[in-house]
Amino acid sequence: MIKRSGHNRTKKVCSVCAKRKVKCDRLVPCGNCVKRGQESECIKFATLQNTQDAINATSDYLPNVLNLWQNYEYWILDIGLFKTQSLNPRKALYDLESNIQECEFWMNYLNTEQSFELLNFTVENLGALYFGCLGDINDLFSQLEQYWRRRDKKETKDDIVYYTSDDYYWNALLWAIFAMCIYYIPMEELEQKFSTKPICDWLEIDDDQGWTESLQLTIFQGFVKCSLVQLQKANFFAYPDIRIIQSFLILETTSFASSNYAVANALLIHCIHVGRLFNIDFNKQYSEDDPLMGISKSTFSKIWFRLCTCDYYHSSPTKRISCHTDMPTLLQHAAFYQDMPNVNIYKAEENFEALCWKIVSLDRDLDQYLTKTFKPQIKTLDAVKREIGILQQKITNKGHEEDSINSQFERFIASFLSNMVSWKLQKMYLIYFETANSLELSIHYSEVILSLIRNNIKSGNSLFNKHPLILSSLSRIVSFYAFYNIFSENVEVERTTKDLHNLITQLPIIIGEKVNGLLFVIDRFYSLKVLWEKVQIVDSALGTIHPVFKILQNDIKFISKFNNRTPILMRGVKSMIPNIRGVYDDEEFEYMENEEDELDLNINESNQFKLIVSEFQSERNIKEIFI
Amino acid sequence: MIKRSGHNRTKKVCSVCAKRKVKCDRLVPCGNCVKRGQESECIKFATLQNTQDAINATSDYLPNVLNLWQNYEYWILDIGLFKTQSLNPRKALYDLESNIQECEFWMNYLNTEQSFELLNFTVENLGALYFGCLGDINDLFSQLEQYWRRRDKKETKDDIVYYTSDDYYWNALLWAIFAMCIYYIPMEELEQKFSTKPICDWLEIDDDQGWTESLQLTIFQGFVKCSLVQLQKANFFAYPDIRIIQSFLILETTSFASSNYAVANALLIHCIHVGRLFNIDFNKQYSEDDPLMGISKSTFSKIWFRLCTCDYYHSSPTKRISCHTDMPTLLQHAAFYQDMPNVNIYKAEENFEALCWKIVSLDRDLDQYLTKTFKPQIKTLDAVKREIGILQQKITNKGHEEDSINSQFERFIASFLSNMVSWKLQKMYLIYFETANSLELSIHYSEVILSLIRNNIKSGNSLFNKHPLILSSLSRIVSFYAFYNIFSENVEVERTTKDLHNLITQLPIIIGEKVNGLLFVIDRFYSLKVLWEKVQIVDSALGTIHPVFKILQNDIKFISKFNNRTPILMRGVKSMIPNIRGVYDDEEFEYMENEEDELDLNINESNQFKLIVSEFQSERNIKEIFI
Repeated sequence: MIKRSGHNRTKKVCSVCAKRKVKCDRLVPCGNCVKRGQESECIKFATLQNTQDAINATSDYLPNVLNLWQNYEYWILDIGLFKTQSLNPRKALYDLESNIQECEFWMNYLNTEQSFELLNFTVENLGALYFGCLGDINDLFSQLEQYWRRRDKKETKDDIVYYTSDDYYWNALLWAIFAMCIYYIPMEELEQKFSTKPICDWLEIDDDQGWTESLQLTIFQGFVKCSLVQLQKANFFAYPDIRIIQSFLILETTSFASSNYAVANALLIHCIHVGRLFNIDFNKQYSEDDPLMGISKSTFSKIWFRLCTCDYYHSSPTKRISCHTDMPTLLQHAAFYQDMPNVNIYKAEENFEALCWKIVSLDRDLDQYLTKTFKPQIKTLDAVKREIGILQQKITNKGHEEDSINSQFERFIASFLSNMVSWKLQKMYLIYFETANSLELSIHYSEVILSLIRNNIKSGNSLFNKHPLILSSLSRIVSFYAFYNIFSENVEVERTTKDLHNLITQLPIIIGEKVNGLLFVIDRFYSLKVLWEKVQIVDSALGTIHPVFKILQNDIKFISKFNNRTPILMRGVKSMIPNIRGVYDDEEFEYMENEEDELDLNINESNQFKLIVSEFQSERNIKEIFI
Repeated sequence: MIKRSGHNRTKKVCSVCAKRKVKCDRLVPCGNCVKRGQESECIKFATLQNTQDAINATSDYLPNVLNLWQNYEYWILDIGLFKTQSLNPRKALYDLESNIQECEFWMNYLNTEQSFELLNFTVENLGALYFGCLGDINDLFSQLEQYWRRRDKKETKDDIVYYTSDDYYWNALLWAIFAMCIYYIPMEELEQKFSTKPICDWLEIDDDQGWTESLQLTIFQGFVKCSLVQLQKANFFAYPDIRIIQSFLILETTSFASSNYAVANALLIHCIHVGRLFNIDFNKQYSEDDPLMGISKSTFSKIWFRLCTCDYYHSSPTKRISCHTDMPTLLQHAAFYQDMPNVNIYKAEENFEALCWKIVSLDRDLDQYLTKTFKPQIKTLDAVKREIGILQQKITNKGHEEDSINSQFERFIASFLSNMVSWKLQKMYLIYFETANSLELSIHYSEVILSLIRNNIKSGNSLFNKHPLILSSLSRIVSFYAFYNIFSENVEVERTTKDLHNLITQLPIIIGEKVNGLLFVIDRFYSLKVLWEKVQIVDSALGTIHPVFKILQNDIKFISKFNNRTPILMRGVKSMIPNIRGVYDDEEFEYMENEEDELDLNINESNQFKLIVSEFQSERNIKEIFI
């Protein structure tokens, strides 16, 4: 909830009130708009207003430009890059039956021995990613035995053997683990365990090449499909079960969510429903539970922490059901976490899931300002700094040289997350308060993050770097510096941008196609820098505006419109069928971009100005980040 | 939110505070419990406490007993009867492939001519149920033509023709309409249009009998399956689309939801997600939309009203994601509805969906007290009475003799809903304030409701009575009088109970198996009356308690525990597999019922007393209402 106090008043009356000719209280959103249910329009106006202020500044533009960054980071690097899918049901030739058949191919491809090897690999290397959401790991081996017993029975018996929903849920969970394994397993190990022949035969391609990264991606995607089809076969709508949450959380440790945002969102929301149906959410733990229930609940609390973390990472204007919002941040309620019967803060230190959530809650405290029209209070930033310092200390204390790979992976994730919070913090000190050294400190933290990643490679743990968090975090950092680099000559910034850029180009293909979107954005910033340097400020008589600002502003507008679309039920007079404006057809994109925007305060742009902007936009259309 | 003011303080400190030996503020839930996240336990205690007060009263027990009714109505007649499913994934032999095959059987069963006849029937008779959630009805006919064109193409062509997700969505919508039609269509018309032969051959039964009610139920269930399979084939998780909401809303006009509560809930939550994804919810309407968008949005607003209505009817402790809660009630915010740009209250009079929601919102204002531990203020009841009077007047004014069947159906639903609110109001005047004439007035409204139903039969519209609202509403009324009848000799009450009971036994089979659960509850009340008269108050030395009270109290406990269950991830030492306590195995029921309850204040029950209670419970186990 936005506090309705005075400190976030804007300078102008909102467009809605202006049009209706009523008194506006200039809060964001304003009282009239709240009353009329037009909050989003009111907020939209204030956001644009802010942007406008930034680009209208005549001199000392850097602070103002940086202010624009927060919005840009949110809409382009978070929403646009990772959470926007252009879906056209009219072009979607999905076939349920052939999907089921493909799944059978993969399930026949994997033999008993391989399956146990995969499971062993995950137990030895990927424990950090999934132990927390399971009761007892040993049970997985007996479940895998039962899985093969079931299959043998089905193959040998003459009469039809039906699986129960329970059987399919186990299949789904096991195949989620296999998929995760294929995602993380190094190529050398994959080569030893699997033959490419059956896959190449089935895909009708040559198998001379042996294992390639793209073949690894294919098998990974196939295994993910298997897990999802098994869930469908379990009839998960009719038989809610905790294992759907467990399977989902395991798939979330891969690039599954970023490649299938719509599916992952729908699944996530179903998981929230199931979690609440079975009362596994945080608030429902009683201190007088019997020991058996106690152990269950401690696992449930980890599952819920993980689900809230995923839920937070899925936040977007197109996902308006969430559970993480019910969970207070460390900042708001340090007491909350201390007072939970089952989440003793001292005991919970040991608990990786709780620790991660605490760090993520601080990330949330910071990232909420990406879309706010007012700046944070400096004491908020200082408080986050204090908390993250304490958590970082705990992570460091935990490390031992003789750690297992699982512990090393846990420590890497926790360190990575906490350094990311520190980086965001410095970025915000810089943007909102121009604090001395904040740019240097931000570079320091980005170097720490880089060295964490490089260290994994050096110590033979480069698989850690496939964690989806790495890409999404790096995309924020590298774009910020590439953006900064447009407007300011700074050797350090330039070097950091290049280092990060290099690292990103070396990331393995399996982490998904989002890398390409990110590289496109970085390239585009370089081109914007050229444009910035080439074009002097145009139309200085009518308020100073540079084409670069206009383009950046248009980017935000485009992605935010796309994500706040409403479908049109009728389309022309002839065909009265549902259609989503700007979603289904390519020509609709044109419409969106050419549309006269009534909030556009620069209608007096010269033709030359318009030409520069439109040329750039047609050569480097921002929609390429998600198509 | 429960207001944290003094007027709902309980008499005793809560069990949690008592155990922790801390000061309890005696609010419900109390401050300590809120802080510790144990609200539900605290509320549970207060509820039981209330019940306890009721059954401990020595004389003039009727008012106290009636107080118990509200809780009983909620847990047994709402949650237990309609919203509890005992699901065991280990016994669920669902087979996705054979489900797809069954769907193909039904799709081949229906020929072109029949499909147009069905569509015509719905347009002429069932418009009230689905026109509101579609853009243009005429379009359905052209979509049906395209449906047949698609099928012909697939059958004649040699190479595989894939349908798009868009095609499957249309299939799903059309089959939802066909399913609704089969649900409502009178037997005579069904006989004229369809042959039983293919179905009987397929089911391997004799087709001598011709059309029976149970065969109609079979074809209805088959058609529902078709709609759901088509949604699966549309890959609805990957391609969100408004048509899933439309299909869902159409299925909701049948017994689909009460027979498939888990599936309907999961679908509903997905629909809420999709609705919000496309911003069709209420709050997002802008007054400056172009006309095309305006028409779309007016349909969306109807869809959202309907979805909120369904969402309200689905409320239960196992569905903790909802959208209706964001919609204010008529009472809270009469201004809200007047001030919406697209929902002009005078214009909206014409809008059936808005009218229904307004009535339903008053129903919600009343039914919220079913689970509250404090009583409503009398001025709240008076305000509801005033509002419902205004709405009832509008409904009456709308009626014309030459109305189409569609308008008659609309008027029937609106009248039925509003009389149901009036009945609940009188029930509450009686229970909470013992208002003079309230019993007589409640009987008056139940007679009005009865005559509405009988009137449909007389005027040839008996299909109206299949609307799922009828059964759920009647179950509340008849059980209340059957309950009242246990403790009090009242000729009027007895007569009304019998009238309603008779009516219910005559309801058609197609409305679903929930009728049996209801008849079981009524029968059980008759048996309780016998027990009440046979057994004098036992153990008068240790506080007066009658076995009947104990049984009623146990009923509430059982259903509420069942619906607030938490699974156990481990079960014994050997098998560490997820299992839901009290859900999967029958023996777990025993555990739940025999469990010592620490809140039970009557541990000093005599053996004779225990014997009476347990004999009754084993003969007429309350779990039979949902098994």
